[in-house]
Amino acid sequence: MKLNTKIMFFLGMSLFFSTTINAQNQLHNYVDPMIGSEGDGRVFIGPSCPYGMVKPSPDCTVRPNSGWLPLPTEVTGFSQVHVSGTGGGQKYGNIQIMPFSGALDKLDQTSYRAEENIKLGYYETVFKENQIKTEITTAEKVSFYRITYPKNASKELKIDPGFFLGENPEPNAREAQQFVGSQIEIVSDTEVRGYSRIRGGWNNGRAYTVYFWAVFDQPIAKHVTWKDGKFYANQSAQFDSGKKTAALLSFGTAGKQELNVKIGISFLSELKAKNNIETEIPHWNFNTVLSALENKWEQLLSRIKLSADTSNEYKKMFYTGLYHTMIMPVNRTGENPLWENDGPYYDDFYTIWDTFRTSSPLITLIDSKRQVEIVNAMLNIYKHDGYLPEGRSGNDNGRTQGGSNAETVLADAFVKNLKGIDYELALKAMLKDAEVPPGGNEEKEGRAGLVDYLRLGYVPFGVGRAGNCTMDYAYNDYNIATVAKGLNRMDIYDRYMKQSNNWKNLWRADYENKGTKGFIMPKDAAGNWLDDVVFGESKIQKPTYKYTPTITESPWYVCHWCVFFYEGTSWEYSLSVPHDLPEVVRKSGGELAFQKRLDTFFDNKLYDVSNEPSFLAPTMYHWIGKPYLSSDRIMGIINESFNTSHAGLPGNDDSGAMSSWLAFHMIGLYPNAGQPYYLLNTPLIKETTLQLEDGKSFKITTKNLSDTKKYVKSALLNGKPFNQAWILHEDIVKGGELILEMDSKPSAWGTTILPPTK
Amino acid sequence: MKLNTKIMFFLGMSLFFSTTINAQNQLHNYVDPMIGSEGDGRVFIGPSCPYGMVKPSPDCTVRPNSGWLPLPTEVTGFSQVHVSGTGGGQKYGNIQIMPFSGALDKLDQTSYRAEENIKLGYYETVFKENQIKTEITTAEKVSFYRITYPKNASKELKIDPGFFLGENPEPNAREAQQFVGSQIEIVSDTEVRGYSRIRGGWNNGRAYTVYFWAVFDQPIAKHVTWKDGKFYANQSAQFDSGKKTAALLSFGTAGKQELNVKIGISFLSELKAKNNIETEIPHWNFNTVLSALENKWEQLLSRIKLSADTSNEYKKMFYTGLYHTMIMPVNRTGENPLWENDGPYYDDFYTIWDTFRTSSPLITLIDSKRQVEIVNAMLNIYKHDGYLPEGRSGNDNGRTQGGSNAETVLADAFVKNLKGIDYELALKAMLKDAEVPPGGNEEKEGRAGLVDYLRLGYVPFGVGRAGNCTMDYAYNDYNIATVAKGLNRMDIYDRYMKQSNNWKNLWRADYENKGTKGFIMPKDAAGNWLDDVVFGESKIQKPTYKYTPTITESPWYVCHWCVFFYEGTSWEYSLSVPHDLPEVVRKSGGELAFQKRLDTFFDNKLYDVSNEPSFLAPTMYHWIGKPYLSSDRIMGIINESFNTSHAGLPGNDDSGAMSSWLAFHMIGLYPNAGQPYYLLNTPLIKETTLQLEDGKSFKITTKNLSDTKKYVKSALLNGKPFNQAWILHEDIVKGGELILEMDSKPSAWGTTILPPTK
Repeated sequence: MKLNTKIMFFLGMSLFFSTTINAQNQLHNYVDPMIGSEGDGRVFIGPSCPYGMVKPSPDCTVRPNSGWLPLPTEVTGFSQVHVSGTGGGQKYGNIQIMPFSGALDKLDQTSYRAEENIKLGYYETVFKENQIKTEITTAEKVSFYRITYPKNASKELKIDPGFFLGENPEPNAREAQQFVGSQIEIVSDTEVRGYSRIRGGWNNGRAYTVYFWAVFDQPIAKHVTWKDGKFYANQSAQFDSGKKTAALLSFGTAGKQELNVKIGISFLSELKAKNNIETEIPHWNFNTVLSALENKWEQLLSRIKLSADTSNEYKKMFYTGLYHTMIMPVNRTGENPLWENDGPYYDDFYTIWDTFRTSSPLITLIDSKRQVEIVNAMLNIYKHDGYLPEGRSGNDNGRTQGGSNAETVLADAFVKNLKGIDYELALKAMLKDAEVPPGGNEEKEGRAGLVDYLRLGYVPFGVGRAGNCTMDYAYNDYNIATVAKGLNRMDIYDRYMKQSNNWKNLWRADYENKGTKGFIMPKDAAGNWLDDVVFGESKIQKPTYKYTPTITESPWYVCHWCVFFYEGTSWEYSLSVPHDLPEVVRKSGGELAFQKRLDTFFDNKLYDVSNEPSFLAPTMYHWIGKPYLSSDRIMGIINESFNTSHAGLPGNDDSGAMSSWLAFHMIGLYPNAGQPYYLLNTPLIKETTLQLEDGKSFKITTKNLSDTKKYVKSALLNGKPFNQAWILHEDIVKGGELILEMDSKPSAWGTTILPPTK
Repeated sequence: MKLNTKIMFFLGMSLFFSTTINAQNQLHNYVDPMIGSEGDGRVFIGPSCPYGMVKPSPDCTVRPNSGWLPLPTEVTGFSQVHVSGTGGGQKYGNIQIMPFSGALDKLDQTSYRAEENIKLGYYETVFKENQIKTEITTAEKVSFYRITYPKNASKELKIDPGFFLGENPEPNAREAQQFVGSQIEIVSDTEVRGYSRIRGGWNNGRAYTVYFWAVFDQPIAKHVTWKDGKFYANQSAQFDSGKKTAALLSFGTAGKQELNVKIGISFLSELKAKNNIETEIPHWNFNTVLSALENKWEQLLSRIKLSADTSNEYKKMFYTGLYHTMIMPVNRTGENPLWENDGPYYDDFYTIWDTFRTSSPLITLIDSKRQVEIVNAMLNIYKHDGYLPEGRSGNDNGRTQGGSNAETVLADAFVKNLKGIDYELALKAMLKDAEVPPGGNEEKEGRAGLVDYLRLGYVPFGVGRAGNCTMDYAYNDYNIATVAKGLNRMDIYDRYMKQSNNWKNLWRADYENKGTKGFIMPKDAAGNWLDDVVFGESKIQKPTYKYTPTITESPWYVCHWCVFFYEGTSWEYSLSVPHDLPEVVRKSGGELAFQKRLDTFFDNKLYDVSNEPSFLAPTMYHWIGKPYLSSDRIMGIINESFNTSHAGLPGNDDSGAMSSWLAFHMIGLYPNAGQPYYLLNTPLIKETTLQLEDGKSFKITTKNLSDTKKYVKSALLNGKPFNQAWILHEDIVKGGELILEMDSKPSAWGTTILPPTK
């Protein structure tokens, strides 16, 4: 029986620990949360489960979008909810705690870090002044703190539901978070409950409430509560009177130096937050929480395996890319205070204008069931709030950036045949965007300038972001047509295919810039092209400025948000026709002229590596039958702008958008979101295995790939010659192998069968 | 010194009890909350402070809008929040309690009333089966229950935050309240806390949360909690998991038979609800709470004094009218979960389409400071939610009925020169309604069909309530012009004065009905008059029906909400031009034809006494110089349709609309809301004194008024002949006396100087 027991034990261990053996080789160890943390990346650096609702992190002042800033900036405290990679005004930063040693007589316990240690699921810092060590890990809805005070030091902790990121002294300042209310109660000698209610922030959203329940493994020896500038020694609770509240707790000097704190978070109630603790972390073992988190990530990261010989540098870049893609949107299923919690609920679509291009397609490829959940959550939002989300956060649609880009996400799910989605409902939701002006607040949801767009076939100058809107709507119309056709709604298909040409209405054919002809340029409602554009509220001065395709900034008197192209130039947006690039080629003067256009674009640094509108551009040589030029551009961009340093992302990561662009290109695939194929480019990885959900796998194998042999000479798909530089999604999910034979010079491969078009 | 003490005592008593001495003569005793409780009135019958947030009442099944139904209908329990006088789907009915005797083993404790006793501020009933007596009174945010159990009976109480009015088995049924979540916690042996989160209801609003804190003057001996159909004997809390929760408490058989319960309510948090108790009722004296409530009402009711010889019947009708006018909208200042609580916040504008005509003007006349607060709350809603309220409830704009009628309220405040309102902001808010289509959900706020209205000058048939919209918008445009002119914005004035003629675009001059020519009739977007109108979703059957000016109901296949005239007919709405009645007279064929039109209208019962669109009609003889005919009609309507019985209101009281119509007419004044005057009619009251806010008073005195001497022969204003049948608001607020000399036959008084017009 001894043997049997051993075998049973071994099998049991295998089942339980199949992902934890060989810890060194585990993929999650290649995730470096610090990549993209400095410079413009703004990624969240703290521990987070995949799509995790709770994201604890230090807040280094109230300014940074992700909470964190590099040393030596001071730390205000550690709050439990953050976003990743965002620009503009801050959001969240709720329920802050801060360990300290000393009297319970001041709220500000700002400290400086002596050191910091960050890895996936784990944050650690030691404060310089008081030598207190704080370690953090997290479950889905509960964060876990292990605080170690120096020997003989008194153990104090601040809990501050009055704190939030982005506070601004100007009342109702745009994009600033605004305090609405907060509350705190010391429930017992080991429990504190309360909430923070905040409105505004980047998406100018309605008030949201973050409830908490905190438990400690040592009894509170002494406490004071605080409200609106005053301490109350004899009150264990401060009710919500529209003022900030907090509490300072002392655990004394007796007992162990290690204080463990679990903070349950909920968007429903404090008791629900407590229940989240009981459900997720019914123990006091920090390492168990960390391991569970690591395992969750390991399961997901291992869906894509890179060949063993891949450099650590590349492994880090790639797996960190996957990681960044899956920390938002946030799974709030069971935590929706707006309607019944009987369906999936995700929040923090921040924003779909950023993520539709590569983040959603990457989630679909890695974890299509998750993408189905996210799409269904989007449809639930449409059903209850009236419109699909675009820039949704804090339980509120609140802002759109360019188009109604959720439509691309729905079309992408449809063309990739994701099951378990009501596509009739999806079509309804898309048509709501496309046909019903959102009114009132035109930047909140749906399509701004829709009335003009439908009447004129373009959004005229004067409507904010008229250029982005026109270009995005035309593509979103194509997305609608795609789904309509699949559902055999040919009347809708015909209408929207026609509308998908609307980008042509802003194509100024004779306009020349840097030797290139034809640009998307501003036009007024009367149909006149505008060389000089007027902006600003003044009716007397009427300042004008010359609008050119290279304009990246608006003059000081033009509101950033109201320009013709927001976060983009005409050089970029004139290429932004993902459904009809052959027509752009033709309009640009044919293949050679288009090639020259692209070369000018990249060589003159008109390509903006830091923002999403340029994402598809490097692959556009595919459409003139020169995929090797695409690969050259991609390689150049990655080499120049992406690496494993803290500043290793060239722009705001925008909820994984930048990271997923990189991850796709590293394995030689690039999606044209909303369409059923990937462009094929020279991968950085010699051999990639996609572990598909139904047990199948798809392998991308290169032969002879090296720094010099970087061009595809020929390809085999499942053993058969494959002469196109693009591959259908369905060919991947069927499973199989794509072998790319590499050579030192460009070949005829992929030059004749161009990518599909409308 | 003895004398002095006595004097001091007397003076002190006078100050403290000036409103409580002579209890019999107190005006609040003339309020009968039962008037309008049966039939269509639907008034709230429970105790309520003026504009009180908390309105406890029995819920007799989940159906009645106000909670209450007459005996013998069963009582489900007593909930703390209700509305008054509403139609359509139910709203509120939150945090229900129910006393019972017996085992803690069933949630349904429905009982039947043996008797009921209701007066202002006080509700009492004894249940038939168990002889438990329940008495209720209330403070602003806290309800107070005195429950008397029979001798030796065991004292049990259910607390049920899962209950709400209007539950409907159909998921997402329109106008039905929908359960979102609830929670309950037994905090100590005398305290229970929790909340109820509900969405939907009549205005299809977003989720709102009602928090409570309940305290008892006896300790809980035993309890069970309940969730989603199951009892939990050992759990003192049920957290929110999207399921209904409740608790059954037993106070045992020991101790006194009387159990007192205070239930604090808050829209912010449970602790705020607790604080509301501590602030408002820091004691256990039921009678003190009741007296305080009575005093609050007494202060307000005594602003209008009727002559001593007024019949009890008239006193009851009048003071109950005032009372009904001041129980909604609800003062939620300090209880707004959406934004900072540093300004006034009122909710339950239910709806302004109902109340703008008479309720708002009556509040302005009695308590102009309150009206300033309400208007400022409306402007705060505009600032934060983007639009003025119309049918707002549960902290959400959600529905409009006809026009953007808040504009009339703002114009009314402006022409009556109310101080402390930012009228520049008010104009902005009005222009938002008038110029920015609400989009998305066109029935939520702003103006439905605005794009068509601006393009065509009318709302074409096909847009829901096209007739109401066109007629209301034209008047609302006049309201905007009024304010614009006062602010010297003549460009806006000119534009909106022009638009205020838009009603003429639906005036079908040659259309004849019952010998009357000229009606507001449906027109399509192409400009064609429609004799037959098509409706319904079917594109195949295309059912049509003949549209006539007497249509009061739509065929079964037409949605009630989408008809040409919602809650009205063309007979009524063809007169609905409060700013340009001389033009209606002219278009109707001159004074005689108009008189015939009005006679036909009333004699054929085309006048709808039960709804607001007809409100101004009885006074319209004024505009042809025959105010005595107006008085005859008014007297007839009051005699026929208003009395002190339970069915003494002829239609939904709609937050006091019906009641304020009556109250105005009883004292001989009638406002044309949005314009600075009152029409003068024969009062029912011999002598009325308006106690104005700055110590002045205005008296309306009749001479020789009797059933036969019911016509004004001549009038004196402050001793000077006053020959017009209307009086400016400013003449009233200056203080003074209007003496009406009565006669048995109509005279030439008021026949020549007609009411002001645009």
